[in-house]
Amino acid sequence: MRIYDLILKKKRGHALSDTEIREFVSAYTEGSIPDYQVSALLMAICFQGMNERETSVLTDAISKSGDTVDLSEFASLSADKHSTGGVGDKTTLIVAPLAAALGCKVAKMSGRGLGHTGGTIDKLESIPGYKTALSAEDFFETVRKCGVAVVGQTGNLAPADKKLYALRDVTATVDSIPLIASSVMGKKLAAGAHSIVLDVKCGNGAFMKTPEEAENLAKAMVKIGASAGRKSSAFITNMNIPLGYAIGNSLEVIEAIDTLKGHGPSDLTEISVALAAEMASLSLGIEFDEAKCRAENALTSGMAFEKFKEWISLQGAKLEFAENPEKLAKASIVQEVLAESDGYIKSMDAEKIGLAAAELGAGRKTKDDEIDFSAGIILRRKTGDKIKKGDVIATLHTNRHASLTLAKELFFASFEIASDMPQEEPLIYKMIRE
Amino acid sequence: MRIYDLILKKKRGHALSDTEIREFVSAYTEGSIPDYQVSALLMAICFQGMNERETSVLTDAISKSGDTVDLSEFASLSADKHSTGGVGDKTTLIVAPLAAALGCKVAKMSGRGLGHTGGTIDKLESIPGYKTALSAEDFFETVRKCGVAVVGQTGNLAPADKKLYALRDVTATVDSIPLIASSVMGKKLAAGAHSIVLDVKCGNGAFMKTPEEAENLAKAMVKIGASAGRKSSAFITNMNIPLGYAIGNSLEVIEAIDTLKGHGPSDLTEISVALAAEMASLSLGIEFDEAKCRAENALTSGMAFEKFKEWISLQGAKLEFAENPEKLAKASIVQEVLAESDGYIKSMDAEKIGLAAAELGAGRKTKDDEIDFSAGIILRRKTGDKIKKGDVIATLHTNRHASLTLAKELFFASFEIASDMPQEEPLIYKMIRE
Repeated sequence: MRIYDLILKKKRGHALSDTEIREFVSAYTEGSIPDYQVSALLMAICFQGMNERETSVLTDAISKSGDTVDLSEFASLSADKHSTGGVGDKTTLIVAPLAAALGCKVAKMSGRGLGHTGGTIDKLESIPGYKTALSAEDFFETVRKCGVAVVGQTGNLAPADKKLYALRDVTATVDSIPLIASSVMGKKLAAGAHSIVLDVKCGNGAFMKTPEEAENLAKAMVKIGASAGRKSSAFITNMNIPLGYAIGNSLEVIEAIDTLKGHGPSDLTEISVALAAEMASLSLGIEFDEAKCRAENALTSGMAFEKFKEWISLQGAKLEFAENPEKLAKASIVQEVLAESDGYIKSMDAEKIGLAAAELGAGRKTKDDEIDFSAGIILRRKTGDKIKKGDVIATLHTNRHASLTLAKELFFASFEIASDMPQEEPLIYKMIRE
Repeated sequence: MRIYDLILKKKRGHALSDTEIREFVSAYTEGSIPDYQVSALLMAICFQGMNERETSVLTDAISKSGDTVDLSEFASLSADKHSTGGVGDKTTLIVAPLAAALGCKVAKMSGRGLGHTGGTIDKLESIPGYKTALSAEDFFETVRKCGVAVVGQTGNLAPADKKLYALRDVTATVDSIPLIASSVMGKKLAAGAHSIVLDVKCGNGAFMKTPEEAENLAKAMVKIGASAGRKSSAFITNMNIPLGYAIGNSLEVIEAIDTLKGHGPSDLTEISVALAAEMASLSLGIEFDEAKCRAENALTSGMAFEKFKEWISLQGAKLEFAENPEKLAKASIVQEVLAESDGYIKSMDAEKIGLAAAELGAGRKTKDDEIDFSAGIILRRKTGDKIKKGDVIATLHTNRHASLTLAKELFFASFEIASDMPQEEPLIYKMIRE
């Protein structure tokens, strides 16, 4: 294989052969082809695309480029979820124990946050005692005991994706459906679950601006899953509004606990139920509606919250913080943000809200920054709500007095006020199954 | 300027601003942006193109990225020619003194050959004594005295082009009209001539496969010249057949001398006359037909050959070799190639013929190879000619007995025999002026 020939072939719009794709991925992973040739190939893929076969082979090669997790002991019960990311997205904290309560085996690896997005691992670490690093043996043992374990990424999973993503990130070659799909699914396949449920966000802040684009991505990923012998499905969801009301680590844990107890915000509850139900539907082979009914019951009956406590205590967390979440870290400064005019909130920019929360201490600007678990934002009003001048629209939580001014500015820039009530947008646009 | 933003802008089909293009070229030349971002940008340009303004600004930035030659003392008389390259193209040896004989000032820098193409500098060095490295003072003094000097490239002319071309060459981003046009014209503008005449080849072996593609490239280059305040025009010529009959350094010098004396091959004479006449037409402000008539007269009257001798002797060549070119280096082995069947030569692959000549010793495989000036090929038949089994179709000239078999194989693979007479193709398709 000469990488030059692959670039030329793709540039001219031809499909690459299986061997060409596999040799390219392995040569790039081991460092024997230079970045400048790979970035030219990636740009050619952005313009010429990849067919289903090429995309599946690329994903398979990425998934096998390093270590893989063997979940075969859980057979078809192992289930995973993936969200294309969003501000205030604490669904994993709810979905993982909820799916486990329904009978799934959720052996999950999650990431940390960077920039305006939070990370599940940071959120979990805000619960005192919770250990995000377990030995492989303890990780599996936890799943065997309670059906769920969530740890930070360990080992060398899909190193080809790490290299490719780092290069795409600096060469404007991120927004390509075959490249996004193979990146997400490459990691998911390596992580081993038999059933994979995807939450593909669309809206202003997402890569996919419209439900149609998101549907194309979702279909590509579901097809990849099927061609790899996994059960996969995807929801197309709206990310024009943050999920729930809380943004920030401890604040999100509190909201997740509320939701697990059956009295969380309706949007967060709806998406969490849908994701967990679909995981159960694929894993257990039951109808989605039946699984959804069981998931709703698990929330109201307290079963889901019991599963949550069992799980986090097996991973070392002190249960008093789950029983009394008000004991979690609290910020010393809580400032109300008041509406400056009357009207309706027409839109919210989730990315700007995430940046405001990061400024308050909830996020990292660089990989080495420390997170303040107590910092963040509680929204009091969201898109579509009517507001009057002087209404409290949010509270800012921080220990850094100096950050308040900038955070407030970012927050005010994040929404638009209109005099007419905006049209309601759906939360879940569609479910895609193979 | 963030190079990332430029890549994204071009990827999305927008035009880059003048400042963006200039900053990109200067940052890349000084090494402050990495190859992997530049190759992604180049690939995006291949797909999205560049408009006339962008192409002109890119060319200008390339031309000013290093040293430039100041030919202002020759005012509008300074004239240059450029050919997009071909096998057996010895036109510079003829055109430079011929244009000088008509009154142009030809202060020219030329390159060496690599791979299947020969270089003017190698051809000139096959004349014993000829110095291809002159001081700037001697170079200008030679032009002042006789109107022509041809030296190897010195100084740091258009270093941006060297870096960009090297990257394009390994990332399959060569075949883009704005990139080819800015590369050629960037060097020509830096070389300083007021009038620039281009020979844009089209055909199997050329980048431009059809006269239409070649015309697009020619028009782009002529427009760049005009927007830089230079007079420029271009000929679209056929490179499906090698020019003249000789391929190889001494062999081509002998054929060039024949042509300068007015009895060269008709195709080589026709193109040389056209190029020199157009240089004179642009420089002196006379009609092309008038200039062409003067050029033809200069060949038959001996004026052109006298100018050739004056020039090469000022650059140190011994005149006995011009007077008696049979004294130039001769190969010890001359082997005839005989036709193996009857028919017409339907096509010739100039690149394969060039590779055969290189194998015999006429060219370099790597930059450090030594050239055997005496080696090469004399064609006896060309495309369109009728041949009978046993006819001599070429002679191979070499000092390397071991190379004969492979060279003969390459040569036989270079042409096709058909039973019908092929349709005659024009030699010059078109002239393009601003």
